[in-house]
Order: sequence, then C-alpha cells, then structure tokens
Amino acid sequence: MLQDKNTELTPISKYGEFGLIKHLTENFGFANASTELSIGDDCAVIDAQGKKLVVTTDVLAEGVHFNLGYVPLKHLGYKAVVVNLSDIAAMNATPTQILVSLAVSNRFPVEALEEIYEGIALACKRYNVDLVGGDTTSSTSGLVMSITAMGLEDSDKIVKRSTAKVNDLLVVTGDLGGAYLGLQILEREHSVYLANPNMQPEMEGYDYILERQLKPEARTDIKKTLEELGVKPTSMIDISDGLSSEILHLSDQSKVGFRLYEDKIPMDSLTISTAEELNLNPVMCALNGGEDFELLFTISPEDFEKIRNHPDFSIIGHTVDLEQGNFLVARGSNELIALNAQGWDAFLNK
Amino acid sequence: MLQDKNTELTPISKYGEFGLIKHLTENFGFANASTELSIGDDCAVIDAQGKKLVVTTDVLAEGVHFNLGYVPLKHLGYKAVVVNLSDIAAMNATPTQILVSLAVSNRFPVEALEEIYEGIALACKRYNVDLVGGDTTSSTSGLVMSITAMGLEDSDKIVKRSTAKVNDLLVVTGDLGGAYLGLQILEREHSVYLANPNMQPEMEGYDYILERQLKPEARTDIKKTLEELGVKPTSMIDISDGLSSEILHLSDQSKVGFRLYEDKIPMDSLTISTAEELNLNPVMCALNGGEDFELLFTISPEDFEKIRNHPDFSIIGHTVDLEQGNFLVARGSNELIALNAQGWDAFLNK
Repeated sequence: MLQDKNTELTPISKYGEFGLIKHLTENFGFANASTELSIGDDCAVIDAQGKKLVVTTDVLAEGVHFNLGYVPLKHLGYKAVVVNLSDIAAMNATPTQILVSLAVSNRFPVEALEEIYEGIALACKRYNVDLVGGDTTSSTSGLVMSITAMGLEDSDKIVKRSTAKVNDLLVVTGDLGGAYLGLQILEREHSVYLANPNMQPEMEGYDYILERQLKPEARTDIKKTLEELGVKPTSMIDISDGLSSEILHLSDQSKVGFRLYEDKIPMDSLTISTAEELNLNPVMCALNGGEDFELLFTISPEDFEKIRNHPDFSIIGHTVDLEQGNFLVARGSNELIALNAQGWDAFLNK
Repeated sequence: MLQDKNTELTPISKYGEFGLIKHLTENFGFANASTELSIGDDCAVIDAQGKKLVVTTDVLAEGVHFNLGYVPLKHLGYKAVVVNLSDIAAMNATPTQILVSLAVSNRFPVEALEEIYEGIALACKRYNVDLVGGDTTSSTSGLVMSITAMGLEDSDKIVKRSTAKVNDLLVVTGDLGGAYLGLQILEREHSVYLANPNMQPEMEGYDYILERQLKPEARTDIKKTLEELGVKPTSMIDISDGLSSEILHLSDQSKVGFRLYEDKIPMDSLTISTAEELNLNPVMCALNGGEDFELLFTISPEDFEKIRNHPDFSIIGHTVDLEQGNFLVARGSNELIALNAQGWDAFLNK
C-alpha cells in the first residue's frame, strides 16, 4: 500500500540496527509505576510490586497471519499488540508492559516500520501498557513480528484454563464470527483488485466486521465488570482460534466436558447476513472462524443471576462430566454434534 | 544437514500447531520455584518473590544470523537461548524463565524442530532456566526464532549500563575475537564444500574458536565470582556486537568517555594465529567481531586489588570525562585511535 505515495522512502540501512530502534521508539512514554527501566539497557526491569507476573508471546508472520495487500501496517501493529493483551486479559490480569521484535526484509522502508510503530503506540496508549524492549533485525524475506506481553495481578485474582468444575455455566463476551467474515470480505475484494486494479473495492456496509478483523480489541474491560458484579470466573480463555477450539482447550485443561447451545451463540446481524451472502453457515463461522478476541469463561451456577441480563455476556452452555464429551446442542432438534478443533491453525490453514 | 539421513521425516502438518508445541515441549521440567504456571494456559505465571524482574528479547533470522549450511540445529537452539541469558547476566541478574517462538517454513520436518528443542533443553538444563511458553507458527520462508528471557534479582544488585563514573576501571571477562574467527573458518570451509561437495572440511585444530561461535556460553557464573570478591560493577553490558560497539553503548548511557589499551585486550593464542592465517588484524576481530558473549563492566578504582590477578578478568582500560571521547590507545606508540561502532549490525552486515 506504499506504492501510491510520491514521497521519497528511507532505506533501513540509513539508521542501522541501534539507530532504528531509537528512532522508532523515541516517542514512547511510560504509564506504569512497575516499569523501572526500559529500552536502552541489556534488559528492562519490572517491579512486580508484590503481584504475580503473567507473560505471553505471539508471532505474526507475513503471508500466514496477515496479507500486506489489504492489511494497513498501522492496523497490523495495533493488532499484534492486541492479540497478546487478549491473552493477559484471559488470565484476569492487567497488562502492563510489552516487548516488540521485528524481523523485516530490506524491501521495507523506514516509513513502513514507522507506520507499524504508530499502531503499536496507539495500542499502548489505549491499553495503558509500556513498550519496554525488543529487537529489530533484517530477514531474508517478509515481515515477522513477535510480541511478548506482561501483566501483573494479585495471586487470588488470576484465572486459569484448568479450574472449571462440573455444572459450571459457560459464558462468552461480545459476539462471534465477525472477524472471520471481515477477513472473507477483505480477501474477496483483494481478489477483485488483483484481477482488475481499476475496480473500486466494495467495502461499504461491512464496517463492523471489517473493524473486527482489522482493528480488534482485547477485552481488558471485562475484569473490572466482573469484579463489580462480584463474579470470579472458574476458568477462562480468549477466543483467538474459534469457539470450538477454545472450548476443547478448557475441556482438556479442566477435565470436564461441555454442552454448547447453538441458539445461544451471540452473533451480530451483519455477521449473519454476510455469512448468508457468502453461502457460509454463520454458526460455523462463530465456531471455527477465530480472531474475535472475546473472552470465554465458566462461572459457578450460583453466579447465574449476577450475569444473566448483563449486555456484555451471553450464557451459551454448561460443563458436564468429562466422559460425556464436548457437544454442540443443535437448534430445534437438540441433536448433539461433536465439537471439533477446526479453528485456525498456522500449519494447516495457510 | 538433514538430507544425509535415510529415515522418513515427519511433516509439521501431522501435528498441527497445538500438537506440535505439546510434542516439542513435553519433556521440559521445571527448576525454579518462581515458575508457577507454564505452557498450556493463555499466559505463564511468575512469582517474582519480592525481587525485580529483568526481561529481554532477541530475534535470530535464518540467512542473517545463521546459515543452516554449517550451523547444526541443536547448536542453534542452544545459542539462541544463550544469547538472551547473556543479556540477563549483563544486568547482574539470575536467569529463571524463557519463552521461545518459532516461525518456520513447511520445508522443515518435525525432526528439525526436535533438534532445535534439544538444544534449547540442553541450555535450559545447563543454566537452570524454565521454558514457560512460546508460539510456533509457519512462515512463508526460512526460520525465525524469537526468545524472551526473564530473570529475578534483588533491586540493589542489578547493574545498568548508565551508572559508570569517571576514573572507573574497564574490565572484561574471558577472551575476545574467537567467535568471529570461528565464523570465518566455518564460512571458508562451507565455501569449499559448496565448490566441491566431496572435499572434507578442514576443521581440525580450530576447536576452541569453532566452539566459541557454535556453542557460546553466557557468563552467568560471573555474578557469583564478583560477589565472592566483594565487587559490584558500576556499569555492565555483554559483548554481542563487538568490544568497540559495547564500549560506545556504555559511554552513551553513562555519559563518560573511555580509554581502551590495545595491549590489554585478552585474546586466545588460537584466535591470534587464525587471524594471522586469514590476514586479519586480531585486534580488529576483538573490537568489531562480536558474539563473544563475555561481560564488559566498569568498577570503582578502589576495587582494583580485588580483581587484578583473577584469571576470569582483564582490566583493559578506564573511563574519562565524556568530552575526552572514546579512544583505543595503540600498543607501543600510545597513539589514540577513535573507537567506531563497526560491530555487527543486522541491517548492514548481511
């Protein structure tokens, strides 16, 4: 998307490795008292302030996780951060710091990296996290981003995947399937563009699902909402690979089975209408699409009343004994359909 | 180096993303009480135990940082960990956990990743660190490894780059230039092999410098040695990009200048003889070669006696006012030669 610009572009070699890091990160401030030392030394220093530190890392590779033909670099930077913050939120913890590593081929000018870092800066500001380190290096081809995110939390507030009990309720935030359908629209319009670069892409009316794909948000707000409601989840995970896959992770770690009710799965009307337009089953998009970055969690049945009418939450099922397996309960028929991990897999869904 | 094996190789797609991570990490145990929760959840959980957490990250890209034509995968895994642990040691901290991310093309079979993880496991065991997370994904070409390392330390023991004072002594551990000359030998023999695959590489007699390049160690032992001597460095950095470049980093962060004495730079006799064989200036190899992963630090002049005869340390110079600049004092002539950052730069030295 840079070829339209008439301005002169700066080769990365103008800065070199250290100059480049300095240049890209010089405008990043610090919001957290736990950030004691940041970029410029061998390590960052974090003061855990008596809390537990939670840490996660994710890699995004060009041509696998994103296509620069239709993903703006600024959005890519933003999303790469969000993906990791979502993992922090899934521990019921508060994100505090990130480290960003880029391996990037020389075909990228400095201006491209500036756009990525603008997106990273936006995410840092939006989520109150500090960029405290990283590494920027060349690659023989393409762009690979690796982000590590850290968060702090009191020990008794952290929620794992492994602690759901039988007869818990299964709850999800927001709505599902939108990010996947946003991607389908982007890919459709990109194919049209490749076939005929003079065609205008038809993106109008798809705003919500495009934003779900290009600029997802991490549900770091849910922790506070649940605290206000007096609810502590018994287990939690974020939805990065699809509802089915995540339910199976909770099942595997907690040693319980799940019943998921098809008619309870929350979907936006645009998600449903777009699925139908593309001859896709909207429920399958929610089950297997991924990248919604909503939180999926279990609660004790005693907390049912506290959650049931809250606009952020949908109760979509419940746990059973592990031996009873993991099934979708079909709308109308109540037929049991086995849940499969057909979610997104970097080695299978290229 | 895998083409010589006659065994059937396993495509990564056999396992898929989650199965692969499980398969590669199932034999990793835990050595640190600070590791509360590891692979298998959205995040790892670390108990900082009242200490400060230090954290660093590094990327290694195929074709830029390593050439799989002559770097065995097991060594690559080992070295990728060591590079990061060296940064922890450079804070005078003790490494405790790592996260490992791989982006890898489908041309790599599972067996190749197993070899990388064998090297990672060896390093974890050798340095008593726990593998607590990571991400494994496909890439469109090549192999990119990103490792994040964490360590814990009491606040008053952490040593930064920014706290050297004027009239401090400059000290380095071990000897320098060996890793760079090991690389020259590997590249020479690889060129010979490419020109004539029937030629046997002539590696004999180069053991020490080949090991310095292929299986470097992080000087995590130095922290204890210095404590026993009753010495706390006033500033510290590790030598990953070359002595010159690291001195300039200390200068930049501490706002002092440096005098480095050419005749004090420690070099192994094999390093010197190999440099001469290759018509290279051995001192330039030490100054600009990099990858020695020794520690470079400053000490207060009062600590001179404690350090001067210790076999691990060489006193190679001292600090001056920033205005006096950074110079190498030439052997014999005492001529002042400006120190330049000609160390290894991923964007310039490809």
